[in-house]
Amino acid sequence: MADSGLRARELLARFRQGERLALARTISVVENREPGYRDLLAALYPQTGHARRVGITGPPGSGKSTLVDRLARAYATKGDRVGIVAVDPTSPFTGGALLGDRVRMTDLSDLAGVFIRSMATRGAAGGLAAATRDVTLVLEAFGFDVLLIETVGVGQIEIEVMNICDSVALMFVPESGDGVQTLKAGLIEIAHIYLVNKADRPGADQLASELDQVLAERRGQGQWDYPVITTEAVNRKGIERVAGELIRHYDFLRSGGSLVRVRRKQAAADLENALRDRVQTYLLTDVLPPTVIEQYAQKIAGGTHDPFSAAEEIWRAFLTRAGEIRKQEQSR
Amino acid sequence: MADSGLRARELLARFRQGERLALARTISVVENREPGYRDLLAALYPQTGHARRVGITGPPGSGKSTLVDRLARAYATKGDRVGIVAVDPTSPFTGGALLGDRVRMTDLSDLAGVFIRSMATRGAAGGLAAATRDVTLVLEAFGFDVLLIETVGVGQIEIEVMNICDSVALMFVPESGDGVQTLKAGLIEIAHIYLVNKADRPGADQLASELDQVLAERRGQGQWDYPVITTEAVNRKGIERVAGELIRHYDFLRSGGSLVRVRRKQAAADLENALRDRVQTYLLTDVLPPTVIEQYAQKIAGGTHDPFSAAEEIWRAFLTRAGEIRKQEQSR
Repeated sequence: MADSGLRARELLARFRQGERLALARTISVVENREPGYRDLLAALYPQTGHARRVGITGPPGSGKSTLVDRLARAYATKGDRVGIVAVDPTSPFTGGALLGDRVRMTDLSDLAGVFIRSMATRGAAGGLAAATRDVTLVLEAFGFDVLLIETVGVGQIEIEVMNICDSVALMFVPESGDGVQTLKAGLIEIAHIYLVNKADRPGADQLASELDQVLAERRGQGQWDYPVITTEAVNRKGIERVAGELIRHYDFLRSGGSLVRVRRKQAAADLENALRDRVQTYLLTDVLPPTVIEQYAQKIAGGTHDPFSAAEEIWRAFLTRAGEIRKQEQSR
Repeated sequence: MADSGLRARELLARFRQGERLALARTISVVENREPGYRDLLAALYPQTGHARRVGITGPPGSGKSTLVDRLARAYATKGDRVGIVAVDPTSPFTGGALLGDRVRMTDLSDLAGVFIRSMATRGAAGGLAAATRDVTLVLEAFGFDVLLIETVGVGQIEIEVMNICDSVALMFVPESGDGVQTLKAGLIEIAHIYLVNKADRPGADQLASELDQVLAERRGQGQWDYPVITTEAVNRKGIERVAGELIRHYDFLRSGGSLVRVRRKQAAADLENALRDRVQTYLLTDVLPPTVIEQYAQKIAGGTHDPFSAAEEIWRAFLTRAGEIRKQEQSR
């Protein structure tokens, strides 16, 4: 215990000196929920909050990775340090893209000041979004100026991930016209910048003008203008404009005072994330040994209990014991 | 309160008489976590466990919906009552497929004994898999003989969903050859039957024989033979074979005694699901009003707290109060 505390302090010291190896090790500790990861996150948290957090999402194959690559190069050229987190909850099937990423990443990693981490499927429920959020915090604490967070689609994991970003770009391709209808239902809320990539294909302009129509109402409500940009990421067309609009959005947040509101919302999400993680660990690991779950599972399979009343029973027993546990902890 | 208890009893009575409207209403209560949903689930749970639960997953566009359609028709023709749950956590982007589903569903719904429910993105973390699991239990309690659960890809939500199934079919298309390599890494564990759909395309036979090679080791370890089947769902080729292999797998589970083990594993998962849900509600809704989260979020944004120590503080305060809360509840 004393040993692991020592190791954690050493790791933290090396992390703060900017050692890449210490960064990679810290990310692993956090991603795999190794002992002490909460203390590490708590120690690093005060160093977060300064970076521009940019989320990029869209359907599989729309060219997000290419855009991220081009953006990272553009930022790095200007001297920004860029951290990239690529999240793919549907791997290995969209895995073609992910494998492509890895090739590309080796290439990008050679650039000074660019760091890439790929996050794929995790076993635990809710685990991927929470781990991504925490890894992003680690990167921010390390001192990256820009964080690019790439996800596939806008499922629940992606929405959770996008909630940690200041600016979100939503990418379409001319073929995804159908999706625009669905977006009206509310999902369009998550994004600030809209991209129509592969703009050399038929239908790009029509999609862009459909998006303009959908966005018209929102534009009337606030001060941000929700730009729609046509790009050809692979041919490097439109990249500068995207980079510029992202900076413009960040400046908009900062000058209008919204950044404070955004940061507070992110803090609330960080807290709920930490709390959920804390409770999950406490209840399912510390308080409820696997044998209890197993015993009840037998009762359920045997038909004498149902899972919902069993959960109620376990929870009430826990509540009764909780005060006692707390007293023991305090007297330690 | 008395009123809602009355309504719940009435709903349950109508559900048990086999009223479709009561089924749809019950699903809504469960899916939207309306008041009383836990009691409903607890009441219905004893009627679950008799159906064949079949999971079908694979990459977007591989033809899962078509297979589900064909399978449902084949089962219905033989007099089986079929419940279908279509889960798409990445909508609206793979939403083209989902919209296609809806058209098809209208069509399928006309068949006697077939019921379809489509589940898309939910806001809450972990919500989609949990809600899908519970909706599947409702369908089973209603008396369906076969439950077909369709998901896209094998991300964490899908794996959680597949855990409620007895038999899982994993679908490939000739183009998904790349994915087979990744499967070696362990994801292949979830499936019992392997399909190569769109088998009229080049590369189908090669993919099938690659799958055979990957599966060889597993086949040696147990008694199940993990069949690889080439299909053309759209042309109705191979459907009977898939239906037959699914029945053969179910019989294998039943005769070898594994079904008991599978059911116990499902019961454990049901319990953990119910427990997670219970704790989440208790802690984040009943015990912690949004104002507490908001207060701490301000402290975090202000830099005096970090989310991890704030979560620790909240949790410890809760533990101290928990025994007291419990006493109050008992004295009510």
